[in-house]
Amino acid sequence: MTSSFLAPGSHDELEEGLQLTPKFDRDGLVAAIVTDADGGGVLMFAHMNAEALRATIATGVAHFWSRSRGKLWRKGETSGHEMTVLELRVDCDQDALWLSVRVAGTGAACHTGRRSCFYRVVPTGENAAGRSLEPVDDERLFDPKTVYSG
Amino acid sequence: MTSSFLAPGSHDELEEGLQLTPKFDRDGLVAAIVTDADGGGVLMFAHMNAEALRATIATGVAHFWSRSRGKLWRKGETSGHEMTVLELRVDCDQDALWLSVRVAGTGAACHTGRRSCFYRVVPTGENAAGRSLEPVDDERLFDPKTVYSG
Repeated sequence: MTSSFLAPGSHDELEEGLQLTPKFDRDGLVAAIVTDADGGGVLMFAHMNAEALRATIATGVAHFWSRSRGKLWRKGETSGHEMTVLELRVDCDQDALWLSVRVAGTGAACHTGRRSCFYRVVPTGENAAGRSLEPVDDERLFDPKTVYSG
Repeated sequence: MTSSFLAPGSHDELEEGLQLTPKFDRDGLVAAIVTDADGGGVLMFAHMNAEALRATIATGVAHFWSRSRGKLWRKGETSGHEMTVLELRVDCDQDALWLSVRVAGTGAACHTGRRSCFYRVVPTGENAAGRSLEPVDDERLFDPKTVYSG
């Protein structure tokens, strides 16, 4: 499948226009931020190429480009944690997308088995230097060894 | 300022460890997702280099790397829309950060004057092909021509 998105136009068209003209980077990717539609914050961060974006738009189910595996990735195809897209938005310069989703199965979005990939807090402020990350919301909802084996 | 972050260790250390070892890309950047601490969803998407991340951690105020200007960028330095970081998290493979923030001034995070950079919905589903973007939450809280002039 090749991209049928139009190339980005002028600065003003990109920011103020109502035509989706994604600004793919030199690897052909845009950023994709996934949040929990039920108010649970950021679940994961991934990338889409034109094919993944087209598949997401057409099906309403989240598809990404797996940089590690070099292939189209229908989220949940192995684990069952499919993501239904309740709303898709694009940012001002059209190089980032925001997917508000509902996750199937156990509700875990992270391949480590957690609900969110963001399960560690980075301490900030005057006394932050050298402090360890702080685990938060890090319960495993599934065992990745079982789900991804074989 | 050079990075004093340790280099990423093993796969297991990166995902399960409590040491911040950011996985900077070939341009020396990690992704930075900014959400509204008061439940207002995703405000913007940007990047940080080691210096921006160190400054954000030390000050509790959001700093980024401006790819367009090629310089450290203390968000709000021109517009007054400084971002106080209420919580900073890192993702499983430590190449993305999530900043939960409160925005000063008018509360606008986007350089176009809107509260969020994500002010257009991309239609999805069976009849989505060829449909225009749909403006949402796109009121301008400030006039960019005035704020960024001169």
